[in-house]
Amino acid sequence: MSLTMCTLGIHGAPMRYSEVSRNIPGVSQKMLTQTLRSLERDGMVRRTVTPVSPVRVDYELTDLGRSLYALIAQVRDWAHENADAVDHARATYDKL
Amino acid sequence: MSLTMCTLGIHGAPMRYSEVSRNIPGVSQKMLTQTLRSLERDGMVRRTVTPVSPVRVDYELTDLGRSLYALIAQVRDWAHENADAVDHARATYDKL
Repeated sequence: MSLTMCTLGIHGAPMRYSEVSRNIPGVSQKMLTQTLRSLERDGMVRRTVTPVSPVRVDYELTDLGRSLYALIAQVRDWAHENADAVDHARATYDKL
Repeated sequence: MSLTMCTLGIHGAPMRYSEVSRNIPGVSQKMLTQTLRSLERDGMVRRTVTPVSPVRVDYELTDLGRSLYALIAQVRDWAHENADAVDHARATYDKL
């Protein structure tokens, strides 16, 4: 869920399914489809169908989605900034 | 994990195991013990043993723990503030 939101959040513009999929290595089509549908249902993602041939479907964060993404991004950044401190704490604990 | 951090974060001072447990209805002793141990290992929680009789054991957030708790608290508050918007989006989606 958060990887999908981060993908859409980082891109900051509508993305096609294939673009989202490429940005989440190893995600199955079934899982990504379920995740996007769930995020759409929760009001986090807007799905726009453009009636051209072939039909074009785009996904983007809604305002509500962007407000949650802002927090997810802070947690992601916290994890990057503090990974060494956590590793150090684990190494110290494991020596006890 | 986040419930335990929120319990310690909200209290803002060392807590005994029984106090933490009382604040997380339904948590098993095994789960809480594992969670506290894991948080201690990750450097989020400090476990202090006071050699009195009976021995006193207290748990509190470390600075690292408090910095993560600050983000968790924001996500918790976001969820409270936006629960109605998510419910509304779900109701609208389910009518499609």
